[in-house]
Amino acid sequence: MVSQSSSGGREWIAERIVKLLEKSVLKPLKVEKVPYFELLARTKDNVYIDEKTQVIRLGNKKIRRKLSDIDEAKTFMRTVLIAAIIYEAIKYNKYPTIRDVFYDAKHTIPGTNIDTVEVQAESDNIIEDLEVMLGASREEMGLQTDVKCKVVGLMRVRSGRDIIDCSRQGEGGAYSPPTNVDRLEILDVDAEYVLVVEKDAVFNTLNMERYWEKNKCILITAGGQPDRPARRLVKRLNEELGLPVYVLTDADPYGFYIYSVYRIGSITLSHESVRLACPRARFIGVAVSDIYEYNLPKNVIIKAKDSDIKRAMELKSYPWFQSPAWQRELDLFLEKKEKAEIEAFSSKSLGFLEEKYLPEKIKSGHFII
Amino acid sequence: MVSQSSSGGREWIAERIVKLLEKSVLKPLKVEKVPYFELLARTKDNVYIDEKTQVIRLGNKKIRRKLSDIDEAKTFMRTVLIAAIIYEAIKYNKYPTIRDVFYDAKHTIPGTNIDTVEVQAESDNIIEDLEVMLGASREEMGLQTDVKCKVVGLMRVRSGRDIIDCSRQGEGGAYSPPTNVDRLEILDVDAEYVLVVEKDAVFNTLNMERYWEKNKCILITAGGQPDRPARRLVKRLNEELGLPVYVLTDADPYGFYIYSVYRIGSITLSHESVRLACPRARFIGVAVSDIYEYNLPKNVIIKAKDSDIKRAMELKSYPWFQSPAWQRELDLFLEKKEKAEIEAFSSKSLGFLEEKYLPEKIKSGHFII
Repeated sequence: MVSQSSSGGREWIAERIVKLLEKSVLKPLKVEKVPYFELLARTKDNVYIDEKTQVIRLGNKKIRRKLSDIDEAKTFMRTVLIAAIIYEAIKYNKYPTIRDVFYDAKHTIPGTNIDTVEVQAESDNIIEDLEVMLGASREEMGLQTDVKCKVVGLMRVRSGRDIIDCSRQGEGGAYSPPTNVDRLEILDVDAEYVLVVEKDAVFNTLNMERYWEKNKCILITAGGQPDRPARRLVKRLNEELGLPVYVLTDADPYGFYIYSVYRIGSITLSHESVRLACPRARFIGVAVSDIYEYNLPKNVIIKAKDSDIKRAMELKSYPWFQSPAWQRELDLFLEKKEKAEIEAFSSKSLGFLEEKYLPEKIKSGHFII
Repeated sequence: MVSQSSSGGREWIAERIVKLLEKSVLKPLKVEKVPYFELLARTKDNVYIDEKTQVIRLGNKKIRRKLSDIDEAKTFMRTVLIAAIIYEAIKYNKYPTIRDVFYDAKHTIPGTNIDTVEVQAESDNIIEDLEVMLGASREEMGLQTDVKCKVVGLMRVRSGRDIIDCSRQGEGGAYSPPTNVDRLEILDVDAEYVLVVEKDAVFNTLNMERYWEKNKCILITAGGQPDRPARRLVKRLNEELGLPVYVLTDADPYGFYIYSVYRIGSITLSHESVRLACPRARFIGVAVSDIYEYNLPKNVIIKAKDSDIKRAMELKSYPWFQSPAWQRELDLFLEKKEKAEIEAFSSKSLGFLEEKYLPEKIKSGHFII
């Protein structure tokens, strides 16, 4: 068996892979039955919102991937192949990217011109299946992706042999966490809240001005659409430490969507929501109503595009935008057809965001939920 | 005058702004002459490659931005306006993003419906003019942008009151440097080379496997097209510490272009090349010839698109791709019309890149320059 020291704490996943293959492949074959994988369906009709936790979850609908079914045989074989690659990665202490897994899995089946996998979406999909079947995230499996997440603020974490002090990253520097933030041990936190900033450049401004020190908080960005490490870290800080989480985005439907990904997740990745969604995340702004309440000058307000209108109508129908406050915001957007960026506050004065807008919002507690 | 403690070492730029405005605006007005800014033209016909340093440089052609010229009056006014915003940022210890500067500068001129700036490209362009006229980079001015650069490896830097040990970033974590890496004091380096990795996810794999520790090096990525902090840091490590710099990209014209940005820069940003270009950067791969020398399987080789062919023909004509080695590589690409990704080595085995390919390349010294 894989030793603890060389696999980065992944031996339990290797064991589960062995058990999964024993149960789904070896056992059926021994009694001359057709092998199959059974897993919860990750489809729209098998998704519901858990009322208590306010998180998207998978229902009980199960699907089978049978070796005997012609359509499913390829998927069955791919599952075995990719499970074996992940097992090998753990055994030899490798941390391949999900693209490496695709290439490692890609072989032309001898005597045919058929490839085991044609495009990466196929191997990525199998990795998601395995997440469900193994009860382990791809990050825990050690698979690597791009990490855009950056953190700075009043927090120290232990990672492997090192202690990282996120308040000692120099002038404007930050800590970029690993793919698997579950391996971080949060040692101590002296912050009163977590501010998630949509835009990397705005994060850098707040960091240079030591906003996190002056306001006793932790700043996190993922530079736009959040990656899984950012979402998981935000959730951990909220749930393990009880820190309020405020999300700052542009005042447009794309920004509202980013907020909703932190809060709820997305339907296609619903099996991850239990790990990644942070239902207590609050939207600090920029709200559509802020455009008018803060009297942003006409010439920094941007006319909404058709795609913004379309996206806003979609958001309006989502279960997690049904609160009166959100419906009012979306209605106001659809009525005015105008949007604004975080940086538009600079038209009032440099520093307006960090010196006026954010402190006022936090003091008043006017969040949109 | 701005005090040292509160402006982050930017007072010299504030002083230069005052001198520039005195010389270009106040002095001419006192003697009833028309004010103008004079600066080196950042145009294709005023760019040359310095033979000695192998860096793109600006020639001596000067242009004037006169207040009396109708076309140039707007540019003149914008220059004064944005110089004043940067002065104000320094004075009040602000670190606005370049988008904040755009919004702060954007005003409707009273009595007209004309805006001082319409789109951000206009204010960005003025910021570049000011870089030339002030002899200061926008990073030194304190202006913020997205920073995708991450660093890990055998190096310690001092930044403000903190010391950051880039070899103590935990399991798979990294240090994300600030916009202005010139403020970093490099304290000690125990590395033998710098490996620049095009792809963030590949960087994460090498980091998780502690490639930098096993191979005594510094790893840097900027997740694709390099940002200015990544370029400046690579140049500093090469020129101040004499460390060889190896650039690892996909085997395609987009990857070769990324390498050339680290090495030479680009014509449109030629005024920055002196600060940012690292002419001794070497291309470690993946070379077109590697696809065949390492016998990559047929099914991981990708057919080139028309846009790849077009880009390769452009690269073939660039002065810094004129070496016999690069011409051979580009000819081979145009003949075979095939490309491959870094991760394609995983089709041979997980870990092939870090255990075989990179060590072999570095040992043999087979770089393409």
